Amino acid sequence: MGQRIFNFSAGPATMPVTVLETIQREMLDYKGEGMSIMEMSHRSKTFDAIVVEAEALVREIMGFSDQYQTLFLQGGATGQFAAVPLNLSQPGKVAEYIDSGSWSSKAVKEAEKLGKPFRVTAASKADKYRHIPTDFVVGKDAAYVHITSNNTIYGTQWQNFPDTGSVPLVADMSSDFYCKRFDPNRFGLIYAGAQKNAGPSGVTIIVVRKDLLARSPKDIPTIFNYQINAEKNSLYNTPNTFGIYVVNLVMHWIKNQGGIDQVEKINRQKAKLLYDALDGSDFYRPYADAGSRSLMNVTWNCPSEELEKKFIAEATAAGLSGLKGHRSIGGIRASIYNAMPMAGVERLIEFMRDFEKKS
Amino acid sequence: MGQRIFNFSAGPATMPVTVLETIQREMLDYKGEGMSIMEMSHRSKTFDAIVVEAEALVREIMGFSDQYQTLFLQGGATGQFAAVPLNLSQPGKVAEYIDSGSWSSKAVKEAEKLGKPFRVTAASKADKYRHIPTDFVVGKDAAYVHITSNNTIYGTQWQNFPDTGSVPLVADMSSDFYCKRFDPNRFGLIYAGAQKNAGPSGVTIIVVRKDLLARSPKDIPTIFNYQINAEKNSLYNTPNTFGIYVVNLVMHWIKNQGGIDQVEKINRQKAKLLYDALDGSDFYRPYADAGSRSLMNVTWNCPSEELEKKFIAEATAAGLSGLKGHRSIGGIRASIYNAMPMAGVERLIEFMRDFEKKS
Repeated sequence: MGQRIFNFSAGPATMPVTVLETIQREMLDYKGEGMSIMEMSHRSKTFDAIVVEAEALVREIMGFSDQYQTLFLQGGATGQFAAVPLNLSQPGKVAEYIDSGSWSSKAVKEAEKLGKPFRVTAASKADKYRHIPTDFVVGKDAAYVHITSNNTIYGTQWQNFPDTGSVPLVADMSSDFYCKRFDPNRFGLIYAGAQKNAGPSGVTIIVVRKDLLARSPKDIPTIFNYQINAEKNSLYNTPNTFGIYVVNLVMHWIKNQGGIDQVEKINRQKAKLLYDALDGSDFYRPYADAGSRSLMNVTWNCPSEELEKKFIAEATAAGLSGLKGHRSIGGIRASIYNAMPMAGVERLIEFMRDFEKKS
Repeated sequence: MGQRIFNFSAGPATMPVTVLETIQREMLDYKGEGMSIMEMSHRSKTFDAIVVEAEALVREIMGFSDQYQTLFLQGGATGQFAAVPLNLSQPGKVAEYIDSGSWSSKAVKEAEKLGKPFRVTAASKADKYRHIPTDFVVGKDAAYVHITSNNTIYGTQWQNFPDTGSVPLVADMSSDFYCKRFDPNRFGLIYAGAQKNAGPSGVTIIVVRKDLLARSPKDIPTIFNYQINAEKNSLYNTPNTFGIYVVNLVMHWIKNQGGIDQVEKINRQKAKLLYDALDGSDFYRPYADAGSRSLMNVTWNCPSEELEKKFIAEATAAGLSGLKGHRSIGGIRASIYNAMPMAGVERLIEFMRDFEKKS
């Protein structure tokens, strides 16, 4: 094995080394079963124990009540952009979307494409998504309110979640689920592609309040039907078995770190180090407004595009990978998900100081 | 590592050991990149090379012309049961389905659920799906003809594919893609969940004739839209990157075996051994009609349910796993996909002879 580098990619993203080592160790023979987890029937007792445990851990770690159920589906957030309006729309009601960035916009466009009534209740597009739009009133005719909890491209994140009263709050948490403590029981539904804080790409975690399952109509694709997949405990069809196994391992890793509070504490330390370095410099300009900064994706610019290119090239050569900002806004982006060690952030800051000095 | 057993599971199923060893070796550091394949951006050059190569190998190994494109989507065959009618239905036309088993029936039910015009043109339900219904005429108003090329539950398989003229032939080949040579250029679209002959569950291979992409309407879920996913070379959204990587490895394994003709030759040898053993015994009764027998799933009964239970329990204890027939028909099922070695089939036959003798 060569040397592992520090991977600041926005996702798929760095994973805990101990999780990778477990996968490696169990690859040809899962716990004496004589086969890989990938070769195992999804109807076997062994796999069933894995999916049942993962389902419970996903809820337990965040403190979901027993009114919620976890589903492991496929298709990522893009699939859920369709699944949410297909399942949760209601006759005579309108879905409300808060547009805080590109992914929110894509969710809106998918609802529109599918012909479901919707409105954009608040948006921060006018200031190039540098802040989270939190000032809005939910309509009485709202079917649900959809937010994107963290915006990977702009580096913004909801600091406090809105109170939507009796209207179900639905959140795409693909890029910040499991990064910090919050009250999950205020949500109607949370979904997340696993590939940032929870596992590999190809498995989508959905936690849904059980009373909402009754909304699923019969005439939508079965693979998207929350009610049917909930009744079958995510085993209506063959799921991404390997992906669910890895999610299970990552959930155990979070517990072993000391749980969500300890993970949050370290995430806040990592983010503070990096934002302090940006704020203490006239060379680097943070992209997101101070009140909307993300713990997961830190975005900034250098004085020129030329310097940004140089920064990225030299950082890559120094073993700091994946720092190129999203093509839509350019600049630099450091994604510091749960599995990014403090040492990676420290090394990055050291590199930033050296780069600034010599530039 | 403990001992590997012979895994006759219908899917997820046994995989080539050399593929598992490669995955194991590359788990923490893919070819000196300093990270796992699972941690790598799907927009990286390295991953792009993997998906582009896999896309080409999927076509090359079977001999698809350049009029076809491979897509790697998510959701398995169940997802495609919806995607096919959503994409390929046409105004004023009717989708035709050949019902050769449970999976065909599910495909029909999904088209019905989505309100697309369809008819069941031929079915073998009356004889409990012991044969493939090949005697039918395709209507002039057919949007497409859908078949299931291999029926895992009943152990039946199309021996020669039907001629549907100018009407696109669509096949669910989840359980026998890459098991034998056939002319793929007679098909409009082939889809397969990867978890039998091509990789792990969670990645769906679709090979579509490019002219059919124009049929995709705009108002369907993007994740299912063949045209959009084709334009973006399966990277519209984050795909199952690990799954695609494994499919790439399995395609290389097929080439290293000597290609599809050599794989077919061995599959025919394995199946012949097993069917000869069944035909040479009065104790075991094959389920499928002789003219419709599957190379991949061999199904049979013992003289009583009690003996079947005993057979399965003793086989499992002897390291022959996954032999229990599907709950809908009971009995015994040996799935002998590409990666099942001849030694596994020989050991099974030896076990069967011993079991018959002492029963």
